[in-house]
Amino acid sequence: MAASRITATIDYDKSGRQTGFLRLPHSVHESAYGWIPIPIVCIKNGSGPTVLLSSGNHGDEYEGQVTLMKLIRELEPAMVQGRIIFLPAANFPAAMAGRRTSPIDGGNLNRSFPGDPDGTPTKVIAHYIDSVILTQCNYAFDLHSGGSSLMYVPSALGTVVPGATERNKQVLELLDVFGAPIGYVSNRPMGADQTLGASAARRGAIALGTEMGGSGTVTPAALKIAGAGVRRILKHLGVVPDVKVAPSPGTRLMEVGGPDYFVYTPENGGVFEPLVELGDTVKAGQPAAAIHFSHTPWREPEVVRFERDGVVLCKRIPGRTERGDCLFHLGTEYRG
Amino acid sequence: MAASRITATIDYDKSGRQTGFLRLPHSVHESAYGWIPIPIVCIKNGSGPTVLLSSGNHGDEYEGQVTLMKLIRELEPAMVQGRIIFLPAANFPAAMAGRRTSPIDGGNLNRSFPGDPDGTPTKVIAHYIDSVILTQCNYAFDLHSGGSSLMYVPSALGTVVPGATERNKQVLELLDVFGAPIGYVSNRPMGADQTLGASAARRGAIALGTEMGGSGTVTPAALKIAGAGVRRILKHLGVVPDVKVAPSPGTRLMEVGGPDYFVYTPENGGVFEPLVELGDTVKAGQPAAAIHFSHTPWREPEVVRFERDGVVLCKRIPGRTERGDCLFHLGTEYRG
Amino acid sequence: MAASRITATIDYDKSGRQTGFLRLPHSVHESAYGWIPIPIVCIKNGSGPTVLLSSGNHGDEYEGQVTLMKLIRELEPAMVQGRIIFLPAANFPAAMAGRRTSPIDGGNLNRSFPGDPDGTPTKVIAHYIDSVILTQCNYAFDLHSGGSSLMYVPSALGTVVPGATERNKQVLELLDVFGAPIGYVSNRPMGADQTLGASAARRGAIALGTEMGGSGTVTPAALKIAGAGVRRILKHLGVVPDVKVAPSPGTRLMEVGGPDYFVYTPENGGVFEPLVELGDTVKAGQPAAAIHFSHTPWREPEVVRFERDGVVLCKRIPGRTERGDCLFHLGTEYRG
Amino acid sequence: MAASRITATIDYDKSGRQTGFLRLPHSVHESAYGWIPIPIVCIKNGSGPTVLLSSGNHGDEYEGQVTLMKLIRELEPAMVQGRIIFLPAANFPAAMAGRRTSPIDGGNLNRSFPGDPDGTPTKVIAHYIDSVILTQCNYAFDLHSGGSSLMYVPSALGTVVPGATERNKQVLELLDVFGAPIGYVSNRPMGADQTLGASAARRGAIALGTEMGGSGTVTPAALKIAGAGVRRILKHLGVVPDVKVAPSPGTRLMEVGGPDYFVYTPENGGVFEPLVELGDTVKAGQPAAAIHFSHTPWREPEVVRFERDGVVLCKRIPGRTERGDCLFHLGTEYRG
Amino acid sequence: MAASRITATIDYDKSGRQTGFLRLPHSVHESAYGWIPIPIVCIKNGSGPTVLLSSGNHGDEYEGQVTLMKLIRELEPAMVQGRIIFLPAANFPAAMAGRRTSPIDGGNLNRSFPGDPDGTPTKVIAHYIDSVILTQCNYAFDLHSGGSSLMYVPSALGTVVPGATERNKQVLELLDVFGAPIGYVSNRPMGADQTLGASAARRGAIALGTEMGGSGTVTPAALKIAGAGVRRILKHLGVVPDVKVAPSPGTRLMEVGGPDYFVYTPENGGVFEPLVELGDTVKAGQPAAAIHFSHTPWREPEVVRFERDGVVLCKRIPGRTERGDCLFHLGTEYRG
Amino acid sequence: MAASRITATIDYDKSGRQTGFLRLPHSVHESAYGWIPIPIVCIKNGSGPTVLLSSGNHGDEYEGQVTLMKLIRELEPAMVQGRIIFLPAANFPAAMAGRRTSPIDGGNLNRSFPGDPDGTPTKVIAHYIDSVILTQCNYAFDLHSGGSSLMYVPSALGTVVPGATERNKQVLELLDVFGAPIGYVSNRPMGADQTLGASAARRGAIALGTEMGGSGTVTPAALKIAGAGVRRILKHLGVVPDVKVAPSPGTRLMEVGGPDYFVYTPENGGVFEPLVELGDTVKAGQPAAAIHFSHTPWREPEVVRFERDGVVLCKRIPGRTERGDCLFHLGTEYRG
Repeated sequence: MAASRITATIDYDKSGRQTGFLRLPHSVHESAYGWIPIPIVCIKNGSGPTVLLSSGNHGDEYEGQVTLMKLIRELEPAMVQGRIIFLPAANFPAAMAGRRTSPIDGGNLNRSFPGDPDGTPTKVIAHYIDSVILTQCNYAFDLHSGGSSLMYVPSALGTVVPGATERNKQVLELLDVFGAPIGYVSNRPMGADQTLGASAARRGAIALGTEMGGSGTVTPAALKIAGAGVRRILKHLGVVPDVKVAPSPGTRLMEVGGPDYFVYTPENGGVFEPLVELGDTVKAGQPAAAIHFSHTPWREPEVVRFERDGVVLCKRIPGRTERGDCLFHLGTEYRG
Repeated sequence: MAASRITATIDYDKSGRQTGFLRLPHSVHESAYGWIPIPIVCIKNGSGPTVLLSSGNHGDEYEGQVTLMKLIRELEPAMVQGRIIFLPAANFPAAMAGRRTSPIDGGNLNRSFPGDPDGTPTKVIAHYIDSVILTQCNYAFDLHSGGSSLMYVPSALGTVVPGATERNKQVLELLDVFGAPIGYVSNRPMGADQTLGASAARRGAIALGTEMGGSGTVTPAALKIAGAGVRRILKHLGVVPDVKVAPSPGTRLMEVGGPDYFVYTPENGGVFEPLVELGDTVKAGQPAAAIHFSHTPWREPEVVRFERDGVVLCKRIPGRTERGDCLFHLGTEYRG
Repeated sequence: MAASRITATIDYDKSGRQTGFLRLPHSVHESAYGWIPIPIVCIKNGSGPTVLLSSGNHGDEYEGQVTLMKLIRELEPAMVQGRIIFLPAANFPAAMAGRRTSPIDGGNLNRSFPGDPDGTPTKVIAHYIDSVILTQCNYAFDLHSGGSSLMYVPSALGTVVPGATERNKQVLELLDVFGAPIGYVSNRPMGADQTLGASAARRGAIALGTEMGGSGTVTPAALKIAGAGVRRILKHLGVVPDVKVAPSPGTRLMEVGGPDYFVYTPENGGVFEPLVELGDTVKAGQPAAAIHFSHTPWREPEVVRFERDGVVLCKRIPGRTERGDCLFHLGTEYRG
Repeated sequence: MAASRITATIDYDKSGRQTGFLRLPHSVHESAYGWIPIPIVCIKNGSGPTVLLSSGNHGDEYEGQVTLMKLIRELEPAMVQGRIIFLPAANFPAAMAGRRTSPIDGGNLNRSFPGDPDGTPTKVIAHYIDSVILTQCNYAFDLHSGGSSLMYVPSALGTVVPGATERNKQVLELLDVFGAPIGYVSNRPMGADQTLGASAARRGAIALGTEMGGSGTVTPAALKIAGAGVRRILKHLGVVPDVKVAPSPGTRLMEVGGPDYFVYTPENGGVFEPLVELGDTVKAGQPAAAIHFSHTPWREPEVVRFERDGVVLCKRIPGRTERGDCLFHLGTEYRG
Repeated sequence: MAASRITATIDYDKSGRQTGFLRLPHSVHESAYGWIPIPIVCIKNGSGPTVLLSSGNHGDEYEGQVTLMKLIRELEPAMVQGRIIFLPAANFPAAMAGRRTSPIDGGNLNRSFPGDPDGTPTKVIAHYIDSVILTQCNYAFDLHSGGSSLMYVPSALGTVVPGATERNKQVLELLDVFGAPIGYVSNRPMGADQTLGASAARRGAIALGTEMGGSGTVTPAALKIAGAGVRRILKHLGVVPDVKVAPSPGTRLMEVGGPDYFVYTPENGGVFEPLVELGDTVKAGQPAAAIHFSHTPWREPEVVRFERDGVVLCKRIPGRTERGDCLFHLGTEYRG
Repeated sequence: MAASRITATIDYDKSGRQTGFLRLPHSVHESAYGWIPIPIVCIKNGSGPTVLLSSGNHGDEYEGQVTLMKLIRELEPAMVQGRIIFLPAANFPAAMAGRRTSPIDGGNLNRSFPGDPDGTPTKVIAHYIDSVILTQCNYAFDLHSGGSSLMYVPSALGTVVPGATERNKQVLELLDVFGAPIGYVSNRPMGADQTLGASAARRGAIALGTEMGGSGTVTPAALKIAGAGVRRILKHLGVVPDVKVAPSPGTRLMEVGGPDYFVYTPENGGVFEPLVELGDTVKAGQPAAAIHFSHTPWREPEVVRFERDGVVLCKRIPGRTERGDCLFHLGTEYRG
């Protein structure tokens, strides 16, 4: 495959703090020779691993964006041992629009890896991250949340690989260090092989993520968890050894299994009434939601039930719903 | 002004329970002789006042819609003394789209009163409610919430009029009966003379409203408050005298004054980080929010402060924000 | 009300044949000083009444447009006694887009009379026709058809007014002269007072119309009926006394009464299966249509029935349908 | 190529009647973990061939959709010998929108085979049908019609392959069994190698299709032909051996050759007046259509002529037309 | 008519320099309690007349916007005698979009006066300028240019009123002071009674304007003329008595008469080739433009000619053109 | 890769003058069997090289379109020795829309080579030009200009290849023959390997281009240069040996190097004020542009400077600008 058409205004090999842009050529009616300016920050000092910190992979997930912007302004080169590459608005057009997907091409960056240097802008971004950035990284932390359509119990997310005992141990340790209420252990992440995390793993990096709230908004509580978690990780890896942060309160390791962990809207054109809340422990057969029909308000609602026992980790936000929308997903205790 | 072009498939004077539609003629490319079917329910029995219960005035405010749909299915004519007119999806095109405003004409129904029989569909709806429904009503309860862009401490809302002692007393009593955490007393409601409530008042009805949550979603907690409040009101008015509902826990009467109660985004193109939460008591000069800039993440955020003391009753939800967006508004104890 | 902002490049008082444009000022981004060029043709000779022949009032009704374009090219001034004003693409932006309504403002010209000189382009056109053209006319024939969403048994359409014996007699005579399969006598036309025909009547002209097929297409059969009918009318009125046309086969006078003549889609989001065809004689209670649900194909269809006896004059075309769409309307023998 | 990302809620190997959905993952702003629910029905019993019955490949072709929905509700497992897989709304987003192509990606499913598991939703559907469904089928019947832009003499459609004598014989026999007015024998179908039928042939299945009317509507006459034809085919193949259906009236075998069978609009921005009708026998040089210009109604129309003799099998519906639109195509007697 | 719903964050009566916003309430899906922030600057000192300086009335006319932003930053209160109100982005949504008209409502502000406090945002702005600002002004200078679709010889524009000798003399004097290459004297300005200038005149103020280039761009040459002209006017009126600016080079007074001064595109769908340039002196009958047809490149172009003698003051920019677009307008020497 | 699905109505091997269309199959909702009609002209006579003359590669670059349309109408077969293939509206949908990119798929044709026969329409066009047309050509001249977003000093453009002495000499000679004010020698053209010129070179043809003005308009001056240049080239190559044209005034050879030749907008949401003009000679560090902020007019502008010495060859046109837009690029004397 061809090389990326993106050029960076920073030099990854240079020490100190650099701020600049990835220039993604975008020749359109309004700007024949223009480029899309994706912000990038690189802080390099001494020796140590390279860590990618990214957010805005989905443009409407703001907790990570705010967390990384604060960290970018706080960290001085002298505080760093190794290198941190910040990509706080990874799918920049989506982030500027406050949308999960890019308004230019409709692309979902986290379903676009490993990308294509001659594809749509979203594919070009994925290809650059995969082929230029992740090839330099030892760790990749991609900060997500529920975005506009979902709300999560704040979670850190790691992926275990059957047989990779050492690696898996490190992932679980990092989840514990991060210290979110939930440590979500996945062996089949959403989007599977098309995510930034999957690309990171293919490139040999340890990948971690978060699902840090959602609703298309930011809360002080979520920022507190995310800010402390990221700092603890960086301290633990020795990349920012002396950063001030409280010790981890630990995490509750949970896993999410197959389709029976998920509840979906069973009918078109309704309004979603949740019958449980985030964090509730539920039983198989328990009513999860009622779908009401505003166009025929006297019609009885459709009631949908949980297919298994578990804890409610994630719920849908928008009231209007169509068949196939995810309303809830559950987690169960991690069984190792 | 001309008569409404809307016809109803129900007869307001008939006893019993009727379900049907307001037929709003809408002659468009896809349907030359079509009409917009706005659901309406009328339950009439015995003698007593006429009460309008409406929701979906803003289509993305779902708490009221679900509350009224449940009540519609629960109430039998024999339970009623008087008449209840339900309009659970008042701006029907907006409700079907899950939007504050109508996708047909962009109209905000609660800024369209007293309406126009020859105007846009939103204006035609306002005119019908004003000229046909409100003229028959003694009470009008229009259930709102924060919708997609705002989140409220659950509140019931009443308007007092200088000098109208008897009427004002009844309004405050109804707020107490409703029993929301906040009883929000207004003398300058949003949208002023263009709201359903303002039309109701002009037509001589007692108008009450709610701001019952928001975020473009429904929660079990908000539904519980709204459902009990509406039932208590109906019981109190004698319209559904024997409905089963717990007694009111009372309410905290608060008022919202002039522009200094409001905090607005000071700059374009940022991400909103709230520095306080709903229900917090704040002081003048206290930082309210930081606006971060994802396109230039190393730029210091703009910090905006509260202009006065108060309690945070309402906050913005969407992370992306532009200058002029309302971020918070405060309330202070009602001084009568 | 102010005078029209439209200027005509033709002179209505001049004899002979003139072709030109109504210039509707339209100052937009792409053309700051531009105007919308609505074609107009005027043929004046000798003495006799003034007749307006219009089509493209709805832009997707082509039978009238083609009929009038042929007539425009065929008629020579020497053939005329009086004056014919042709407006073959009355809502010009709609006609160019092949849409019922204007792509500029969404306006339905035949629901916009008497118009507004300072309103949207559609309102400005209505106002010009009402205030400048119809004030000069003795007869106004506005050629419609079912358009994109409906199909009609080819009909000529006249309106009778209670008590106006002479006028009504002339209308019925003209229907007979036109010689369509159906002569549709209305006393409550669609859109009522907002149509071109209603404006014509208010201005003292005799108004006639057609519903000449539909489906958003043209057929040789419909053109034959329309072309002969218009020529017979012009000959009958003495305006084109020697035009060659076969004598009228007569017409079947029918009338369309209240809501029970109409059948509407009872549910959202279905596919319309007609159970009868145009021209069928049906009975009250007979199934009219089944609405199938492609999203849940195993669901039983909703069946809707005729509410009265009659003849099927009009049916819906598009397969996809929403609650409130008109599926059929009936006619019954005209009872005078 | 990778495996499909679609999962089915039914089990193709299970006996009996199953209804469910193909879940096409679609992670978008409004629904981060959602899927597109493509309805699927499988009826399996005893032994016999596997038949795919599909419609809604183009979303605005309703005759097949209604025919298959009726059949789905009529057939009981005990009536079947073998297996029938129903895909009545194959390009589900297009079917729900009533559009030929998908509103999500603009894709024309019948120009998207053999598809791509990592492509647009339309490509993903094509890939699943090709790689999962057609690999299980002996016969594939894809029900089309003229859709919104064309109207056909009701036809069944088969493709013959030079040299494949046995196979071709079976195809001609099936056309005869189907019993549409026209049996359309093609050796260069529209879209060639990109159609469902072409994929079926590559997968070794016998493929048959229809062109069952059109105009974006349904008629009782077309449904009667389609319903009887499909039942006769299923009976003939022994898959529904005892279904009640009248014997085939036979068919008129015709073929459609090269570009001289087609008539196209010669100029931009006109209104299409057909000068012949469906079923007419025409001669080379005979005028086929006149294109009129509503923006300059006094301009002479452009007349376009047939390039060869034949029978009019298909005509364009929409009145507005642009250069390159197909106005008619002819057929000639099949010469084997 | 009702009072404006706009509130200003500045106080017009306060001395010194104030910067702030007109808050136009705009309650939409994304911002329920938001307002549109229209920037306003007021500089008041000593005694003297009140002058409105506005630009961005059409959002794609940038020369005035840049000229006023520079002046806003340059002027100190001590330099002023009287009051200057700056409205540099009058139709703010249009200015932010770089469009002639508002992206919110399609409104052309300079065809919206005197406005409507309950209308679209554009109408609300017009009403506020008319009823609140112009009622305080002695002079109103509204800086326009050709915008995106036109290019002008830089001109200052004044309107004379038959019989108002003193007033007219002052207008001509101001044109001379401004010192643009052309002083354009109008007695029938574009948009007539619907412009800001017309409202100013109705409110008793002296109104002046410019047509300062265009093409949707800014040039150093146009800025030089505009900047010096505005400063000379302010000095001449004594409002900024000591501002440094070169003396006026004088102006060439020209007038623009009736329709024969204008040349329009005669046909749809072409490419505009100008045959003359700005500033050329032309004769009646001289070819003005050729319209070529890219869809049929071998077709001869349509040539359109000037209808009278004159000087080319204005030409169209965009190559693509439709019938009714203005290609050129002429001027002739002012005859007083 | 598969063969093109495009068919041509002309025969490239036939002598004489042929006009016709490339038929690009485009099966869409409005036209199921339609094709996009890309005009093509072929003039062949005697013996000599084959030359492609193309324009409308970007649909908003009109100078080339008008130049080629004039030439198409002027040239008679007898004037030609060899073959000229004209493709005056290469990306036909873009040319009809007056947009740089295609309104159908957003494609930029000059970033789409070598194309894809199964891709979007823009990709299909690129593939046809590459695989069918360029394989027959000795020379390919693709006429560009600055389009809507840029303005150029009129330039002819050639690409030199290190080591290809003979070829490079011919390119420089052709630039001199063309005789534009600037002869722009590139070794890294915009879009690199994805342009028509790059495909031509890969196919062994000599490729030349132009940047002939811009602003989305046509000027008499630019047409004069382009028309004479193309004629001189055709005469020089012996393809139109006797065409009447003045001798070349020669050209100034310049080159454009790396990123320091370009100036980009440094901030979002501003208005572009150029501080230099086309043709100016500038120094490193000299201010190039000021970016003003209409939403905060009292904010100081951002000033951006040239990074090196040079001559201003190209500038941005639209006033509104975002970070990453190209404002200027420089050229320096060609150093061979």
